[in-house]
Amino acid sequence: MQGDVLARDCPSRQILQHVSSRWGGLVLIALRGSTLRFAELRRRIQGISERMLAQTLQVLEADGLLIRTDHGEVPPRVDYRLTPAGEEISARVFALSDWIESHLPELMALSSDAAGRTGR
Amino acid sequence: MQGDVLARDCPSRQILQHVSSRWGGLVLIALRGSTLRFAELRRRIQGISERMLAQTLQVLEADGLLIRTDHGEVPPRVDYRLTPAGEEISARVFALSDWIESHLPELMALSSDAAGRTGR
Repeated sequence: MQGDVLARDCPSRQILQHVSSRWGGLVLIALRGSTLRFAELRRRIQGISERMLAQTLQVLEADGLLIRTDHGEVPPRVDYRLTPAGEEISARVFALSDWIESHLPELMALSSDAAGRTGR
Repeated sequence: MQGDVLARDCPSRQILQHVSSRWGGLVLIALRGSTLRFAELRRRIQGISERMLAQTLQVLEADGLLIRTDHGEVPPRVDYRLTPAGEEISARVFALSDWIESHLPELMALSSDAAGRTGR
């Protein structure tokens, strides 16, 4: 079975949306190769609210892309790491964001050229 | 200048969001290496509304990632193709979606295991 993200009801489209949602992609990038606690993740991903981080972690956990470990200690210690499939996907999201980050001056020039051309 | 998508106000974060938004990624994938008219694009990306396609094309055009060409004919002929930077980004979005498409059985099994484990 091969998925097709351009097909309306293919489950691959939903997974693509989870891993490239506003916060999903950033959580995958932040967790790449690391085991992090909630507060650490929240510090890495500037601007994410507690609620959005908790929601995003739940979605990616339900997709089997990350594992939440509760060490059962007092005070509670809970951490998050990617599964092997999560690491594979994270590497690809990172390749995309890394290209954008390293071509930012070029991309910003393109965007202001386009604004000039379309009069927006 | 190197961008940082994890930083709150870095413009690279906004570009990443445009190219991986619900429809932005699919438009980039559908246009990879092709010049297409609006109706052709809409047929390729199943389930996209006219309004969402028009809006997504405008955002990507304003980012300088695609070019809209109006051939000034009657009846109107307008087509869309990616710029070189758009093709670079599209290739990376495609690498992500292609991995998901070709590992779909494994990803679906992971997701049902996770549902069993978390009781959701």
